[in-house]
Amino acid sequence: MYGAVLYGPRTVRFEERPDPAIVEPTDAIISLPATCICGSDLWPYRGANPINKPTPMGHEYVGIVEAVGRDVKSITPGQFVIGSFFASDNTCPHCRAGFQTSCAHKEYVVGAQAPLLRVPLADGTLVATREVPPADFIPSLLALSDVMGTGWFAADAANVRPGGTVAVVGDGAVGLLGVLSAKQMGAERIMAMSRHESRQALAREFGATDIVTERGAEGVARIKELTNGVGADSVLECVGTGESMQQAIESTRPGGSIGYVGVPHGVELAGADLFYRHVRLLGGPAPVRRYLPQLIELVFSGTINPGKVFDLRLPLSQVAEGYRAMDERRAIKTLLQP
Amino acid sequence: MYGAVLYGPRTVRFEERPDPAIVEPTDAIISLPATCICGSDLWPYRGANPINKPTPMGHEYVGIVEAVGRDVKSITPGQFVIGSFFASDNTCPHCRAGFQTSCAHKEYVVGAQAPLLRVPLADGTLVATREVPPADFIPSLLALSDVMGTGWFAADAANVRPGGTVAVVGDGAVGLLGVLSAKQMGAERIMAMSRHESRQALAREFGATDIVTERGAEGVARIKELTNGVGADSVLECVGTGESMQQAIESTRPGGSIGYVGVPHGVELAGADLFYRHVRLLGGPAPVRRYLPQLIELVFSGTINPGKVFDLRLPLSQVAEGYRAMDERRAIKTLLQP
Repeated sequence: MYGAVLYGPRTVRFEERPDPAIVEPTDAIISLPATCICGSDLWPYRGANPINKPTPMGHEYVGIVEAVGRDVKSITPGQFVIGSFFASDNTCPHCRAGFQTSCAHKEYVVGAQAPLLRVPLADGTLVATREVPPADFIPSLLALSDVMGTGWFAADAANVRPGGTVAVVGDGAVGLLGVLSAKQMGAERIMAMSRHESRQALAREFGATDIVTERGAEGVARIKELTNGVGADSVLECVGTGESMQQAIESTRPGGSIGYVGVPHGVELAGADLFYRHVRLLGGPAPVRRYLPQLIELVFSGTINPGKVFDLRLPLSQVAEGYRAMDERRAIKTLLQP
Repeated sequence: MYGAVLYGPRTVRFEERPDPAIVEPTDAIISLPATCICGSDLWPYRGANPINKPTPMGHEYVGIVEAVGRDVKSITPGQFVIGSFFASDNTCPHCRAGFQTSCAHKEYVVGAQAPLLRVPLADGTLVATREVPPADFIPSLLALSDVMGTGWFAADAANVRPGGTVAVVGDGAVGLLGVLSAKQMGAERIMAMSRHESRQALAREFGATDIVTERGAEGVARIKELTNGVGADSVLECVGTGESMQQAIESTRPGGSIGYVGVPHGVELAGADLFYRHVRLLGGPAPVRRYLPQLIELVFSGTINPGKVFDLRLPLSQVAEGYRAMDERRAIKTLLQP
């Protein structure tokens, strides 16, 4: 098969790779009707993480089960399934506590920008839908595999409550779906921080009540102004830089909560600053697996349509252009079809 | 009157100071049947915080209201009252959210190591008991003013739940009362980290099920061992150094919570480390005012006896010896009587 491989900064090749095979008896092989590029793929693409060898890319996936290993019990060929970027056994204490991305046996899923994918720990990782969905549901179901589940975790970690005030730092796909999540959780006021017109429009469609175009100290001042000087009850940090985290911390009311899901790059937190600000922090790789059953229902019932974040669709063979478009912020998120 | 004044590292003098007077119409003056020395007083005593001028010491207090300003409505002379180390209006949005130590009008209370004290914002700050308590209740009621409320906040911020596992870093008065708080909140296993025999004994009396004498990586390994490799659901950080915070972080299970109340001195947190550990953090100056009504009931009903942390009683005039005893860890906490 042909799939995407990263060779170094801004060098993605669409090239021949071996078809995946069952390696462990707990594996499944699935075929992917669509795949996509993640905002977090841009960190290595831009050289922020070193690439020591050619690296197959992609960790978001939905598809049809083609084969399972002999120990797989609950997943069967022919099912339509969704999984998370971390495979998990879903039975260890961390999984049972709902933090499957800290599973004692977690394994990172790689190589999903391809027509076929090997998924480890299939029973724990994959959630089958009640039926094979119609084609137009596929973008929204694919979004559940990472960005939607991550936006939901950000809102959950930030303790979004009915009637609450929410600020979202970051207007990438995760930030936008954080807006949608906050809306679903009943937030009354959702302030999306964005300077991009098309993203602002999608934020509003997803439930943002206010758009804040200012950044840094001005952005914080604007959030304070919009909350009568108090600060937001909940802040979703969906970028991962020191600046965005500081903006999140200063936008939060004392006793308020930050859910941070942007992969931290160079983020250092001053203990005394957090202490005197009374800010509650929870972040990490989103335990998407925990939320999948609930989110699948919300998609099947037509309640949410997170697939709207895909504003560029390309054939898989043009994956390199998909990266370029996201890197240059011409696209929010690229859907790739084999 | 005579009170304690800090002149520089390890230099506390008991000297004449002006009697406090009503300055603002919202003030109260109270007379103190007992006062005490806080673990946090040791930071400036040891030179960790610079002392630029002679500084009256003490911020823990209970006592009889002697006078009130003309705008004080709910507090009246003759009442027995308890307040927190931060005066607060108890009406601003931060107070209403239960974070009175972030009150928009907060004011630090100083000079309580003396027979008389001025308390600002009396209506918001002071809680009157239903009657003037018998003398033997006074140590426990005095403890509510800071250390007990702070231990309670640490346990609350660390999400201690019935049946949960709890680790407590720090065996000062706050850590020991964190043990007591976790017990009250229904924790099943409470692991107190302590190397001091008398403190271990008090920890056990307050509800600790296990004593961990190891520190650093060995301490973390022991907590992991006691929790079947999982880590503690809740960790109370009651010291405030970089080492103690790191020990707390590494002792917490993924998805678990840290309540940190040790005033941070040189604590830097690595964003990526917190991220991948899935640790929930909340700390700060304890909003003691929020808990006072509940804790007063627990003392009056005989349910808790936090005054047991006072293992040294001295006349106020020997306040300097009280500091020395705590600095040298000969005493957990010193009670001072005029």
